[in-house]
Amino acid sequence: MSMNNLGIVKRSIVRADRAAVEKLACFGVATVHEAMGRVGLMKTCLRPVYNGAQLCGPAVTVLLQPGDNWMLHVAAEQLREGDVVVAACTSDSDDGFFGDLLATSFRARGARGLVIDGGVRDVKDLATMQFPVFSRAISAKGTVKATLGSVNIPVVCAGTLVNPGDVVIADDDGVVVVPAAIAQQAADAAEARTANEADKRKRLAAGELGLDMYKMREALAKAGLKYID
Amino acid sequence: MSMNNLGIVKRSIVRADRAAVEKLACFGVATVHEAMGRVGLMKTCLRPVYNGAQLCGPAVTVLLQPGDNWMLHVAAEQLREGDVVVAACTSDSDDGFFGDLLATSFRARGARGLVIDGGVRDVKDLATMQFPVFSRAISAKGTVKATLGSVNIPVVCAGTLVNPGDVVIADDDGVVVVPAAIAQQAADAAEARTANEADKRKRLAAGELGLDMYKMREALAKAGLKYID
Amino acid sequence: MSMNNLGIVKRSIVRADRAAVEKLACFGVATVHEAMGRVGLMKTCLRPVYNGAQLCGPAVTVLLQPGDNWMLHVAAEQLREGDVVVAACTSDSDDGFFGDLLATSFRARGARGLVIDGGVRDVKDLATMQFPVFSRAISAKGTVKATLGSVNIPVVCAGTLVNPGDVVIADDDGVVVVPAAIAQQAADAAEARTANEADKRKRLAAGELGLDMYKMREALAKAGLKYID
Amino acid sequence: MSMNNLGIVKRSIVRADRAAVEKLACFGVATVHEAMGRVGLMKTCLRPVYNGAQLCGPAVTVLLQPGDNWMLHVAAEQLREGDVVVAACTSDSDDGFFGDLLATSFRARGARGLVIDGGVRDVKDLATMQFPVFSRAISAKGTVKATLGSVNIPVVCAGTLVNPGDVVIADDDGVVVVPAAIAQQAADAAEARTANEADKRKRLAAGELGLDMYKMREALAKAGLKYID
Amino acid sequence: MSMNNLGIVKRSIVRADRAAVEKLACFGVATVHEAMGRVGLMKTCLRPVYNGAQLCGPAVTVLLQPGDNWMLHVAAEQLREGDVVVAACTSDSDDGFFGDLLATSFRARGARGLVIDGGVRDVKDLATMQFPVFSRAISAKGTVKATLGSVNIPVVCAGTLVNPGDVVIADDDGVVVVPAAIAQQAADAAEARTANEADKRKRLAAGELGLDMYKMREALAKAGLKYID
Amino acid sequence: MSMNNLGIVKRSIVRADRAAVEKLACFGVATVHEAMGRVGLMKTCLRPVYNGAQLCGPAVTVLLQPGDNWMLHVAAEQLREGDVVVAACTSDSDDGFFGDLLATSFRARGARGLVIDGGVRDVKDLATMQFPVFSRAISAKGTVKATLGSVNIPVVCAGTLVNPGDVVIADDDGVVVVPAAIAQQAADAAEARTANEADKRKRLAAGELGLDMYKMREALAKAGLKYID
Repeated sequence: MSMNNLGIVKRSIVRADRAAVEKLACFGVATVHEAMGRVGLMKTCLRPVYNGAQLCGPAVTVLLQPGDNWMLHVAAEQLREGDVVVAACTSDSDDGFFGDLLATSFRARGARGLVIDGGVRDVKDLATMQFPVFSRAISAKGTVKATLGSVNIPVVCAGTLVNPGDVVIADDDGVVVVPAAIAQQAADAAEARTANEADKRKRLAAGELGLDMYKMREALAKAGLKYID
Repeated sequence: MSMNNLGIVKRSIVRADRAAVEKLACFGVATVHEAMGRVGLMKTCLRPVYNGAQLCGPAVTVLLQPGDNWMLHVAAEQLREGDVVVAACTSDSDDGFFGDLLATSFRARGARGLVIDGGVRDVKDLATMQFPVFSRAISAKGTVKATLGSVNIPVVCAGTLVNPGDVVIADDDGVVVVPAAIAQQAADAAEARTANEADKRKRLAAGELGLDMYKMREALAKAGLKYID
Repeated sequence: MSMNNLGIVKRSIVRADRAAVEKLACFGVATVHEAMGRVGLMKTCLRPVYNGAQLCGPAVTVLLQPGDNWMLHVAAEQLREGDVVVAACTSDSDDGFFGDLLATSFRARGARGLVIDGGVRDVKDLATMQFPVFSRAISAKGTVKATLGSVNIPVVCAGTLVNPGDVVIADDDGVVVVPAAIAQQAADAAEARTANEADKRKRLAAGELGLDMYKMREALAKAGLKYID
Repeated sequence: MSMNNLGIVKRSIVRADRAAVEKLACFGVATVHEAMGRVGLMKTCLRPVYNGAQLCGPAVTVLLQPGDNWMLHVAAEQLREGDVVVAACTSDSDDGFFGDLLATSFRARGARGLVIDGGVRDVKDLATMQFPVFSRAISAKGTVKATLGSVNIPVVCAGTLVNPGDVVIADDDGVVVVPAAIAQQAADAAEARTANEADKRKRLAAGELGLDMYKMREALAKAGLKYID
Repeated sequence: MSMNNLGIVKRSIVRADRAAVEKLACFGVATVHEAMGRVGLMKTCLRPVYNGAQLCGPAVTVLLQPGDNWMLHVAAEQLREGDVVVAACTSDSDDGFFGDLLATSFRARGARGLVIDGGVRDVKDLATMQFPVFSRAISAKGTVKATLGSVNIPVVCAGTLVNPGDVVIADDDGVVVVPAAIAQQAADAAEARTANEADKRKRLAAGELGLDMYKMREALAKAGLKYID
Repeated sequence: MSMNNLGIVKRSIVRADRAAVEKLACFGVATVHEAMGRVGLMKTCLRPVYNGAQLCGPAVTVLLQPGDNWMLHVAAEQLREGDVVVAACTSDSDDGFFGDLLATSFRARGARGLVIDGGVRDVKDLATMQFPVFSRAISAKGTVKATLGSVNIPVVCAGTLVNPGDVVIADDDGVVVVPAAIAQQAADAAEARTANEADKRKRLAAGELGLDMYKMREALAKAGLKYID
């Protein structure tokens, strides 16, 4: 029995409920992250490769080897309409694993975007195509196709565990992962939070202080805060 | 007697002269930094969260604890029209201390922007609001309200000492701090420098060499520079 | 005999063939890098200071000292129409070695842009001027004119050897160096690669898989890839 | 139903088989990592705080909040003889979460060491005590006890998933995680690999080339390697 | 009037009380930092250049220019028996500002060590001499003597404000600064804390839990911590 | 004609003069770097993997691919008594390219050590063997043997150009490269510098100031240095 998941492509994965995914797509990363209780964020090193990029969809996961993008080609075949590719690597590598040709292929196969803990290239083309990509680096460095990784196994991408089928949401604020099993619950919580924030925003815009609105003054005094002149 | 300034809010601070602040607002960071004799710059890790962000105003300073934005709420009450919030942290933390709700509150209370040695979120909203923020990171990670820091004490933000009331100027080139006591002098020096640069720019544009304009040839020869073919 | 190349300005350098340079200017960095066989890229820390910056031209090389931009002024005199300045430093320094005045001078002397393993400032002005600059940092920190470096000696810039006269190409994907002696060959190879990619892009856009187009299935099976459900 | 695992202490965990753990303790990190097929390594940012530190044992996992070590105190109660504490944090924080007092407590409760994706202090005392710690940073910065994390939930520590009860092995080469379910299999494979390496070492020491011993020449030639003079 | 403190050597500084300094020398950095209420630490990038280095003394401060160690020579003349040199730089520079010759000179003039936000060299010699140095980098890169900085002005070193005469304490855990005015108070607080810790250590070593000793259980329960099986 | 040097092994290289190499081995890195006029240093990210490691010898150069150590095996065959292996990589990779088996092989073939812009493992064994290695990282991560690089072509290692046969010297202060053609000259200059330093060290130890010994006072005054009380 193998001690690892390398060299495997899992074809049948359970994607998060479509309706939940579509609902989650209405909310930003910060809102969803808060709605889940402040979990699921990837590290801040992942950034959009063009201004305004955003995506939401169930994850097809990929485990890459450093300097080798073979498994991205393997992953293309596993894509369904609406999927997001989430690519991790067995060790840090900023090489350009992905560019406009793979983006063309991924889009043709239904992908809504890519989140990769590595580098990408052809970023001008990606912007023109409006194919959203969140990566750790931009690099023209080409990659080989020589060593197996895996597709659709659980991966740790930018510090966060992603199971195939989990919902991945990304925008200017970063990337958050919602486990498939709680996608609907998270969407509902995000909705509730958003409604709640609208009222707060209005009150704050009118000059009310968070100190009062959140009733912080007592706790601050208890903690020992002193006002001096 | 306390050995530190933690848990303190200073309500009365001496802001730099308003006319000097308004004059400084006419000049870029690089110009002001040069005019003061190349001092006062914060580290280059602070970057605008949207293109074209810029700000100038007297500092309301905040000392945060890692992963905790309580004192930003406390600071909101201390703001006056035209102020800039400068937030340091007792240790490095990229969490999202600040987002659109606090921006709404700060703006309502008169703030012109934020400089923070930490992370912020809701950056798309900040761009839409045109609320200028300069930060070390962008992160959707939420923060708690549990531990006291201080407001309006001297802080070291991104490597530079900031006293409450000092003028803080930020643009695409970075962030510079002008001590309140020399705000007018710095503004005048920046003005003089700008006038002087206009002439230089014209001569350089006409093809004159800096070697001649700055009379560098003799010093270069003395230093031993050799021209070979 | 000197053991180093410090304190030297080489006036006569052999620039890459002009026609080859102009042809190379038609291709992106990723394409040229691939066409040469995946060599010649500078490290990914070099980034354009404004969106859309790009450049191509023979290199006038500069070796700077940390915090000292004297040799950029010396280099200005050595520029010819179409040149690109490539500046390395004897040790890492993020200071602002270059700004709008030097950009004005460089442009007046024919320069097409700057690649610098260091910092620059006045980036808003550079964007307005559309003077393309690729740098490791943005910093308003001024520099002195006190210590000699060199002009037009071989330098290592961001991890890559650059000889004076080599072609330097930069865009959103990074910076690549083409040795002068193979400029025409590289341009031809880039052209061939581009033609070849157009067909591939079309097939991928139609839904054909890279697995089939690149005939990867056999090699993957041989490497042991297993498909499971 | 909660959408996250925060604020939870799981008391009953299934630790890896004791005999397998003891056997794994005989092998180095590099050997175990190879034996498992090159998986399970934490990122290289984790380093021993004193020369020669090493540890092996089943993991009691902790999820910390930035700048807050409350959950380490909670974890102490869950320790059994031979355990290793593995501490992750909800966001990057180099603060000194752990020092000689907690080390004293952990040891008294049976712990064999600590792996923490954060900072520690009192490193001289830790060396004197010979309490092995692998951390990302050394920092005297104190932490608060204000916000809940969890104990014995799955955590991602330095890029690697750790389930409570998994075997954690650390030495000068880094930190590797062996899932509890394959601990015996990994130990056996490590043993086999070690036996195999002894013979290789002997042959290499006698001057035999890896090129011949591993029969690489044909593959190199096929890949196109050319020898020139 | 100058707008900055560049080009200045202040000869008369008020050093912290000698008895207080000697008492502070008995305590570690972590203890002093806690005793002061968790303030005054320099960033963790400063590390001892050899194992076991430690120092304590009033600061003679130096502001350096990048790649230039001229002011260290100027500072030598200002040293008195027992002083510690604290060197900051106007921008980040890892060059080797300091080596065995300067160490020889500093020691001859009474210095107890060096804290520098920059690089040093000859580290083997420094270890042999047992001249304690805490630096951000080790680099053989030589520096010039061309541009003025200052001696004995307030500086920000590794993120912390240091006034001349303040007490600087450094050991394996980092570097902490004690303002001269509170040196005695900090020493007394460190003493009290140390006495208090001895008892705690004993109880923890006997197996008592921090949960009980610090009476954390109620606060944890109130915060919502749940124990599950 | 190939546009790059990939896939090549050069068997005949001109090593620096043996006597010059042996003489250079008597001096430290900082001394040789200064003797050559402050050139040739590799970046400070390269560190010895054990305390006291040092090496000196002519370079056999290797260009690796990320995560792939195939060419180190190829290089072993090209070694002669006294050589030092210098390994660069086509892009940044911290993987463990080298461990005790390769060290055994390299030593058996005459190598004096390794300088690698990448990671290594088995560092405890390397220390036991006293096989000196200078690397950018320590990582247990294994590498594949799948993609060609080259042996004995010019490489850029940690920012410095190394030609096969150049002398590489490494110690606690870093790594310096001496071009083969000036090895004797550099050795002589290092000798002269060392003799000169002995006298300076003696005078400084006696309390003489560098200000006087180097006659800096006039230049400082001319630069505008002011002494105040």
